[in-house]
Amino acid sequence: MNFTGAHILTVSQFQREDVDRVFSTADSMEPYALRKRVTRVLEGAILGNMFFEASTRTRVSFGSAFNLLGGEVRETAGFESSALVKGESLQDTARVLSGFSDVICMRHPEDGSVADFAEASRVPVINGGDGSNEHPTQALLDLYTIRRELLDKGKNINGLSIAMIGDLRHGRTVHSLTKLLSLYDGVRVTLVSPRELSLPDGIVESMRNAGVDVRIRHELAKSIVDVDIVYSTRIQEERFSNKQEADLYRGKFRLNQAIYTQYCQPNTVIMHPLPRDSRSDANELDNDLDDNPNLAIFRQTDNGLLVRMALFALVLDVADKVEKFSADVNWYNSRQSSKITR
Amino acid sequence: MNFTGAHILTVSQFQREDVDRVFSTADSMEPYALRKRVTRVLEGAILGNMFFEASTRTRVSFGSAFNLLGGEVRETAGFESSALVKGESLQDTARVLSGFSDVICMRHPEDGSVADFAEASRVPVINGGDGSNEHPTQALLDLYTIRRELLDKGKNINGLSIAMIGDLRHGRTVHSLTKLLSLYDGVRVTLVSPRELSLPDGIVESMRNAGVDVRIRHELAKSIVDVDIVYSTRIQEERFSNKQEADLYRGKFRLNQAIYTQYCQPNTVIMHPLPRDSRSDANELDNDLDDNPNLAIFRQTDNGLLVRMALFALVLDVADKVEKFSADVNWYNSRQSSKITR
Amino acid sequence: MNFTGAHILTVSQFQREDVDRVFSTADSMEPYALRKRVTRVLEGAILGNMFFEASTRTRVSFGSAFNLLGGEVRETAGFESSALVKGESLQDTARVLSGFSDVICMRHPEDGSVADFAEASRVPVINGGDGSNEHPTQALLDLYTIRRELLDKGKNINGLSIAMIGDLRHGRTVHSLTKLLSLYDGVRVTLVSPRELSLPDGIVESMRNAGVDVRIRHELAKSIVDVDIVYSTRIQEERFSNKQEADLYRGKFRLNQAIYTQYCQPNTVIMHPLPRDSRSDANELDNDLDDNPNLAIFRQTDNGLLVRMALFALVLDVADKVEKFSADVNWYNSRQSSKITR
Repeated sequence: MNFTGAHILTVSQFQREDVDRVFSTADSMEPYALRKRVTRVLEGAILGNMFFEASTRTRVSFGSAFNLLGGEVRETAGFESSALVKGESLQDTARVLSGFSDVICMRHPEDGSVADFAEASRVPVINGGDGSNEHPTQALLDLYTIRRELLDKGKNINGLSIAMIGDLRHGRTVHSLTKLLSLYDGVRVTLVSPRELSLPDGIVESMRNAGVDVRIRHELAKSIVDVDIVYSTRIQEERFSNKQEADLYRGKFRLNQAIYTQYCQPNTVIMHPLPRDSRSDANELDNDLDDNPNLAIFRQTDNGLLVRMALFALVLDVADKVEKFSADVNWYNSRQSSKITR
Repeated sequence: MNFTGAHILTVSQFQREDVDRVFSTADSMEPYALRKRVTRVLEGAILGNMFFEASTRTRVSFGSAFNLLGGEVRETAGFESSALVKGESLQDTARVLSGFSDVICMRHPEDGSVADFAEASRVPVINGGDGSNEHPTQALLDLYTIRRELLDKGKNINGLSIAMIGDLRHGRTVHSLTKLLSLYDGVRVTLVSPRELSLPDGIVESMRNAGVDVRIRHELAKSIVDVDIVYSTRIQEERFSNKQEADLYRGKFRLNQAIYTQYCQPNTVIMHPLPRDSRSDANELDNDLDDNPNLAIFRQTDNGLLVRMALFALVLDVADKVEKFSADVNWYNSRQSSKITR
Repeated sequence: MNFTGAHILTVSQFQREDVDRVFSTADSMEPYALRKRVTRVLEGAILGNMFFEASTRTRVSFGSAFNLLGGEVRETAGFESSALVKGESLQDTARVLSGFSDVICMRHPEDGSVADFAEASRVPVINGGDGSNEHPTQALLDLYTIRRELLDKGKNINGLSIAMIGDLRHGRTVHSLTKLLSLYDGVRVTLVSPRELSLPDGIVESMRNAGVDVRIRHELAKSIVDVDIVYSTRIQEERFSNKQEADLYRGKFRLNQAIYTQYCQPNTVIMHPLPRDSRSDANELDNDLDDNPNLAIFRQTDNGLLVRMALFALVLDVADKVEKFSADVNWYNSRQSSKITR
């Protein structure tokens, strides 16, 4: 695809070479994200960070990524403050807001809303999550994390074995990630969920058609024995229509250090899209994993910054000018000496 | 008037020459708003964008205008987060907040509040809307749009014929615009509204005293036959105390392409202060007008950016330095090649 | 203490020499706060301004202070938009958010929360107020104001006589300020409050152990006769469990110009942490004091900007580079000609 001026709406728009381009660009952003260098390549540019649904981490991640490239951010952080409540169409909102910035990130509670908005926008739009539909930057940062974690172990995404655990029926993160994994060769995906919360058949079929080795399981322990990555997601009790099934599975998909030690390979990487529920009755990943060096959940969010910087740089066509406008960092930098959270 | 360091509180403070100065300054801002050039003239300056009432579009427009001149924006986006709720006076709030920025934009739900605030502020204050009282930048951007649209047709504001349609009783936008129109010669204004929602007598009288030819109508079709501009505004059903009158007029002031073709001149310009209600039972301007090149409603909001940039530049006395601090744009610009939304 | 990379969590971490360092750095920030010069020393740096509790003035003050040093600000302005509501631990939130910025300011409704957050953060954290526990920058700006006001009168903090008035039991501002005052010699503190709202015994004892001359009073007039500073705070009626005591004291701690003239020395300085309740039944400081040149309440908030700039500069180790990256101001500056609000 041609990134310049393009909307980023769904993972379906990416071919393998496009993903490769995003990832190599993300790699080149690391010195700036780690504040070893600063760049002013987007000085004067404005991001319209339009979050019509509350989200601190994703909103701030997009905003910081744009700031790290030297640009300014104007934003909205909730639905209530919008003309949408006065009956304005998304198309009108897009025509108005796209006059105020050079690129727009948008989150909105309704499926398909961001694509509708993009159609009327005069500037590129990046989907920050539209209802239960798409959240492409999350899928890209997840796959980018998988790639980096495997690279440290001398492997790559081709040949990957991954277990995806939790509510696979409703998790848009998982749905998008499976689409991206289908672009690679020799991938084995083990799906681990309560029966009622299984991955939709259509998605399973698409993966198999693309050559992915898909295995369907409903028990945790045996499913994580021989995998490179354990990707855990939240199970919300209210998702079960069948109360008895909810009782049957309660606590059965929690991963903690004891289970990890007993069943996983020594280097199995643990991922989660966050936030992780840390209340004692709801832990999908136990806090006792925090000292496990293979817990990659905070490296995931750090990588999100790199991937979002890369998308901005590609869409605004400045990827090859970032260094030219770079300079030294003046201030004390707590993280300069090491790789992100390593 | 002397713009340097002045508050912008009401359209009544402007003479013809002041309006001319705002407009010629706004013209000079176009290369920056279109991102053909960037300027850093306000680098280091801070706008306090104090919206004590929700408004995405106006708030972001002011903020982006300041960013486009190179300045930074600090803001608040709702009443609840304010010390005002703890009984602090507006004067105290002004003394405090005016220490944090170089210029303040303020919206507040109470009539007269922004003027009270300005009196105690140590920096210039621009009124972003105070209740049903004033919204001077909207009136200026409307008149600026009229001027530009007429200029494209070889005309100017002197001699203008405009139809103003909708709820003329409550619309602060219309009230302020009539004041500005009164500064020009040979203007004819046709007021079209339900009887109960007519423009207040005092305003009609002021216009006539200023030499405006005012015509009062209660039916749409014949009123738009011979005008340069149709300026439509929203009619909210709850504004009628008389339910029978509401029924009588329901849908009677909607403009769509069929009515436009039948009654308007081929080049009649269509304006609206936005947001436009696009729900099928409430369209004041039908979506089927969207392909009509004379629909200027999105050019209005784009022009708002130019007018707000101009006011900042005049109040902070940098209008003649904008170019000196300008530079090339580094990034891909979706709108560089054409005039705004044309 | 070594400021570089340090968290600023409590006034208890400061020794006399540390306070002196903050204050001399704050002094050096005045040309930038007064917009006589601009500096870009923190260009490219990002502040994460994380307010998980509403606060316009403190939030904007921190943000403006960072902008004045040339940095960018990403922020959140309320609890509702946070993953915390989904059961995420403060530690997880800290690990995530500290990847997005170079330094974090945080306000949170729970006592001790900011320290917990800081422990997991990878960047320095400045406490912007955690429940009823600590608000160290307020205490520092109060003491900095005392120092400046006394300096104008040829005095210094050693030998200070101050009356603290109002709800001394619950006011975190007063508690923190007493700790800082205990670092100085020859200080006399007169505590004036309703009996039920007295300063906790433990704090009185700590002050006396540190050599402070503490006097406890329950009546206003005689307590303010021979002091350099009157420091007034709010009394909220709902703080009294004893309704009769509330009735007994109602209005008895208000200071107005008549009382000031009758009892105070001609140069006694009046302070208040703001916001001041200006409703007629609740005035702790009457509006008729507004023309009194010794009313320092707005100089306090202006000084807050200097103190916060100083803390950022010290924590990020750029205090000695601010001038090197400075430049002239391009725009009209309403306050350039005089000292802040003097």
